[in-house]
Amino acid sequence: MDNISSKDNRILKQAASLKEKKYRDSLGMYLVEGPNFLRDAFLYGGRLRFIFTRAGALSAELEEIIRLAENSGSAVYSLTDECFAKLSDSVNSQGIIGVAEKKLWQEDELFAEEDSNVLVLDRVQDPGNLGTMLRTAEAMGFSGALLLKGCCDVYSPKAARACAGSLFRLPVLFAETEDEALELLKRHGKTVYAALMDGELSCMEAELAKNAAIVIGNEGNGVSEGFANAATGLRIPMAGSIESLNAAMASGMLMYEAYRQKLS
Amino acid sequence: MDNISSKDNRILKQAASLKEKKYRDSLGMYLVEGPNFLRDAFLYGGRLRFIFTRAGALSAELEEIIRLAENSGSAVYSLTDECFAKLSDSVNSQGIIGVAEKKLWQEDELFAEEDSNVLVLDRVQDPGNLGTMLRTAEAMGFSGALLLKGCCDVYSPKAARACAGSLFRLPVLFAETEDEALELLKRHGKTVYAALMDGELSCMEAELAKNAAIVIGNEGNGVSEGFANAATGLRIPMAGSIESLNAAMASGMLMYEAYRQKLS
Repeated sequence: MDNISSKDNRILKQAASLKEKKYRDSLGMYLVEGPNFLRDAFLYGGRLRFIFTRAGALSAELEEIIRLAENSGSAVYSLTDECFAKLSDSVNSQGIIGVAEKKLWQEDELFAEEDSNVLVLDRVQDPGNLGTMLRTAEAMGFSGALLLKGCCDVYSPKAARACAGSLFRLPVLFAETEDEALELLKRHGKTVYAALMDGELSCMEAELAKNAAIVIGNEGNGVSEGFANAATGLRIPMAGSIESLNAAMASGMLMYEAYRQKLS
Repeated sequence: MDNISSKDNRILKQAASLKEKKYRDSLGMYLVEGPNFLRDAFLYGGRLRFIFTRAGALSAELEEIIRLAENSGSAVYSLTDECFAKLSDSVNSQGIIGVAEKKLWQEDELFAEEDSNVLVLDRVQDPGNLGTMLRTAEAMGFSGALLLKGCCDVYSPKAARACAGSLFRLPVLFAETEDEALELLKRHGKTVYAALMDGELSCMEAELAKNAAIVIGNEGNGVSEGFANAATGLRIPMAGSIESLNAAMASGMLMYEAYRQKLS
């Protein structure tokens, strides 16, 4: 294990630059913080270039990660507190961060499972929401997600942390426009539903057991017009005087309903 | 409308103290920020003592709130930017904050509706989660919530904002211990279910259409032993390699399932 004690170290500076989207985009890498998240990365095929530990933070848990890293050929560095602080996004950091290579998922991976359901995210802005939705998609048996341009970056530290292990397991594709997304979904035989407060169809009456693509829109403004016009509006029945649910909550209920129908 | 331009003003200082739980507890009041939240307060019987606006922030929307306030006898003050900043919790403040009196809900209000479902929160720590769960409880037709000691404060600015209008509509009671909560729920004929990752009963097989009390535990540690022992463990079926769902997400799915059964 090499040591890094200078804040001008080239490898440290490159890793720290990954806090910004433009460098994640140009370098094709992102940060993975914490032992659980890193263990998932090694377990589920995430490719890690570097591992950084905070000098003195060593524990049995971190040593296990370091062994996994060394066995898989990742370079491991020990950092001074000051250097480590340049990387860490968390106030309660557990003293370990990795640099992972983005995985480019292929179309046939997203649609590998026949008749599967797919989640479509349309300008979801909150990284915590985005990560939670992807994690929930995996839990509810969706085969993957399609992210429209305008969503926040799934590889930002906050979104990645909320997504956790699902980031390495759940196929995620990207689309530039609604038309591109709709064409792709149609080609794979998916029926497109859009979550809309005043949707024409109750999710309890829709057939969501298979081949459903469920579009979740922006937290404030909902689904874009392109999707709202092309998709069947899906409504969650609600009691009381509530006008709308939190976007992540609504997506969870719709995916739950789809999974319930699939299982029953 | 009176003006306040001194940060030492007694009314301003008292209002600002409500950012801290101990003053919310001792004064029985809390802060309500933003025009939508305040409109809900006036609409749904929230009692507002004071309204503070930021000088220069006036708009048609704020003027409507001020009229509502003056008609209902709340005192309205115009504050300098510096004074307003002492109250506001939000970086994107819309320039209006009220001081509301806590409503003390009665047992017969929580249980007014026959056969109703009830949400029970056991040491839920995150204010955003807590507020979202209460909001979702109203949307899924639950008659109210029972909060165990150890939950975060429902009247904190963050929890109240996530709860929004439901704070004025959804009956919420408090219990000191699991035993007190269990005794209350039993007395009203509720069957107690606890959300547990390895619960013995799938929520899809449980009978949740009526008289269900669903216990949601702490985000990190789950439901406390007292509830886990006394309640039927309720599991959400999951695909993939996911170990657990976000607590708010899990509560939403369980409440959705209960509401679905009630409607079908």
